[in-house]
Amino acid sequence: MFKKVLIANRGEIAVQIIRALHEMGIKAVAVYSTADRNSMFVHLADQAVCIGGPLPAQSYINMGAIIDAAVLTGCDAIHPGYGFLSENAEFAALCEDCHIKFIGPSSKAISLMGDKASAKVTMKKVGIPTIPGSDGNLKNVHEALDLAHKMGYPVMLKATAGGGGKGIRKATDDNSLIHEFQADQREAQLDYNNGAIYMEKDIQNAKHVEMQAIADDFGHVVYFPERDCSLQREHQKVLEETPCSEVSPKERKYLGSLVTKAMKATHYTNTGTVEFLLDEDNHKFYFMEMNARLQVEHTITEEVSNVQLIKDQILVAEGQPLPYTQKDIHLNSYAMECRINAEDPAKNFMPTPGKIIYANFPFGTKGVRIDSGVRQGDVISPYYDSMIAKIIVHMPTKKQAVSKMARVLKEFDIKGVHTNRQFLLDLVRDKGFQEGNFNNRYIEQSFLKDWMSKHAKD
Amino acid sequence: MFKKVLIANRGEIAVQIIRALHEMGIKAVAVYSTADRNSMFVHLADQAVCIGGPLPAQSYINMGAIIDAAVLTGCDAIHPGYGFLSENAEFAALCEDCHIKFIGPSSKAISLMGDKASAKVTMKKVGIPTIPGSDGNLKNVHEALDLAHKMGYPVMLKATAGGGGKGIRKATDDNSLIHEFQADQREAQLDYNNGAIYMEKDIQNAKHVEMQAIADDFGHVVYFPERDCSLQREHQKVLEETPCSEVSPKERKYLGSLVTKAMKATHYTNTGTVEFLLDEDNHKFYFMEMNARLQVEHTITEEVSNVQLIKDQILVAEGQPLPYTQKDIHLNSYAMECRINAEDPAKNFMPTPGKIIYANFPFGTKGVRIDSGVRQGDVISPYYDSMIAKIIVHMPTKKQAVSKMARVLKEFDIKGVHTNRQFLLDLVRDKGFQEGNFNNRYIEQSFLKDWMSKHAKD
Repeated sequence: MFKKVLIANRGEIAVQIIRALHEMGIKAVAVYSTADRNSMFVHLADQAVCIGGPLPAQSYINMGAIIDAAVLTGCDAIHPGYGFLSENAEFAALCEDCHIKFIGPSSKAISLMGDKASAKVTMKKVGIPTIPGSDGNLKNVHEALDLAHKMGYPVMLKATAGGGGKGIRKATDDNSLIHEFQADQREAQLDYNNGAIYMEKDIQNAKHVEMQAIADDFGHVVYFPERDCSLQREHQKVLEETPCSEVSPKERKYLGSLVTKAMKATHYTNTGTVEFLLDEDNHKFYFMEMNARLQVEHTITEEVSNVQLIKDQILVAEGQPLPYTQKDIHLNSYAMECRINAEDPAKNFMPTPGKIIYANFPFGTKGVRIDSGVRQGDVISPYYDSMIAKIIVHMPTKKQAVSKMARVLKEFDIKGVHTNRQFLLDLVRDKGFQEGNFNNRYIEQSFLKDWMSKHAKD
Repeated sequence: MFKKVLIANRGEIAVQIIRALHEMGIKAVAVYSTADRNSMFVHLADQAVCIGGPLPAQSYINMGAIIDAAVLTGCDAIHPGYGFLSENAEFAALCEDCHIKFIGPSSKAISLMGDKASAKVTMKKVGIPTIPGSDGNLKNVHEALDLAHKMGYPVMLKATAGGGGKGIRKATDDNSLIHEFQADQREAQLDYNNGAIYMEKDIQNAKHVEMQAIADDFGHVVYFPERDCSLQREHQKVLEETPCSEVSPKERKYLGSLVTKAMKATHYTNTGTVEFLLDEDNHKFYFMEMNARLQVEHTITEEVSNVQLIKDQILVAEGQPLPYTQKDIHLNSYAMECRINAEDPAKNFMPTPGKIIYANFPFGTKGVRIDSGVRQGDVISPYYDSMIAKIIVHMPTKKQAVSKMARVLKEFDIKGVHTNRQFLLDLVRDKGFQEGNFNNRYIEQSFLKDWMSKHAKD
């Protein structure tokens, strides 16, 4: 059993990890950048170590400084949270070398899933349907053109080291393919030091459906009801719900069998999420990629499945068996999450860092959960993501959840920084959302256009 | 359907009623005393009317002023919350006369349940076991002495107009009976303008087990899993849990049948709670009294039963059928509630009114709900009860709930007024509580003695 765990992260997720550790009787060590000196997570931790300057490279992805802090404070394990080093195979391997348990999958599994083209090849091999496209990376632009002619335009180019919606470009004809191929390659080389790219057919009318699972060292795998994360903007999730209105119980079981197969084939332990595209034209699921980490939206899964995923991550990292089996996971309710960010939707979602001079988080009443890492008086820093809080509503039905979420968003009151509260409120009240009539382009191609025509500022 | 509802209450419960109304698309009108001018519930309401000075008689139990406010603002109904006018049959009748719907039982049902001795007689008639004692009120002290000799000491004397733990005195021999009889009579006359008292056998080793139910105008009654409210101090509840560890599924059904019988026999509508004593020596349940209102601790019932009781109260008051049946109520989890008060346990729980200069409510993470009516900067007034927040934790098991509640209480941080946080934390960590080894005298006769020996101040 762990006695002390270091959290290699900040903000909201650091707060929730510290709380999980405390509920398990484990000491929590925070590491923080100079910009986060007065943050809530630093205050809540049992010990806190300043590891560098405000830039992530100076602190939160500074592997040496983090490992040093873990060794000096006598930690048994490191929880990476999401973002930063959470899917960094090198860091996971470094932890393994230093005999500090990395609370997540093995470096090998992270490495496999991190190369999106080779992950896709692995999944195809074990019989999981993948989006039609290249077998692995493209050798050159000629191969890309040949394949595009075979499949027909439009096609998507994806950086193999990308993921999470980054490194993706669309081509609609030969000219744009030649241009985007070079641009994507150049960008991937710069961003990931790996210029390899692969191609997929562009599925025009699709939902983003993902399924989270968790595995222990004893070969037990449990999957959870799928999440619909189609409501995105620039490939970033805006609002998530579970279950997806278009997935039947039979399909849920089918997706679960695919995810279990994927995890067993890769000897995957701890939690991970397989992202699928649901092609609405033929109602088929295609593997997109696997996120080898805890995700922001794990909260809605916790609500409908009645589990506590951060605690379960810690348990299985300790080498304990999962405290439940597939039979314990029932789906008879609905949950959704809205992410409140310090940003101005009317100014193209420009981040609005600054000091929160007043904060009224409308916690309370049945079914409302607000996970946050900031308090009144805290500063939203320009160095990091601009999330202020995740509002999670869990109710027997979507209709009930919608009226509760709308009420909570109306009450939510932050002064000092502009937020996307009104944008989210309008989205929750939108008929398309309420009736489930949306795909992964709904926000950008439909909702946002209407919204901007009313709200956009110069 | 109601369009506008007045809330004849203040603080926490007023906030939760306003939220329920808003989620149902109904406008909320607050009434407030001059002391509550800047309160959270006044801020949240769509309209607010000042109805008088800080003393309850000037405002929150000032029936004329409240009815006037309801008429002037065009309200269809009044929700009385708990305390104040919530069990006042005269007020309910006044609402009925003015064609304003009182959101609660009929004035007739309130009146019947409000007279504790006659309520007991009614219950006995329909076959519900009652505590051995007098049949109705005692004529005089001679009848009291005769009965005490038949039953054996100790006995309890109770004011028939009392309830909620008030107007109760214990007698251990003839001398004390003569003395307490006169004292109780005098006190009841003063407090309730009704000196009638009745007698019950004193059950020495008992749990306070209560069961809430709700009924609509169509004769549907649904009961909910019982709550164990044995942890009391001076007959006031300190910590409540559901279910009670000593009630079997079969006994739960039995209690449910008693409660249903009680409600049907009295043509009771809306929500109410039947309080039972569970005699641990013979494991028998005895009817104590019925609370004809929503109670503070309805929250834990909402959590384990997956219902929203304030909304359901409003629905049935509108004349709608209950949105669920008995079959929809499953019990497969555990919930507990701690009441954070502005009081100093080490100084005999003296109230500590004052301004909250800093408030950190540790909302967030799965299973935590904090219902509060105050914000940082607000004042806990000496005129009203001193509750700051209800912390509700809902988990699959009591063990999980205990570790979460302890963590939340540790994080809970209020500056400016002293609170009972440490007392509650010690109670939650107490082995007797955790193992269910407590009766309704546990706090006063055991836990508090130990606690005071460590913490009491002169």
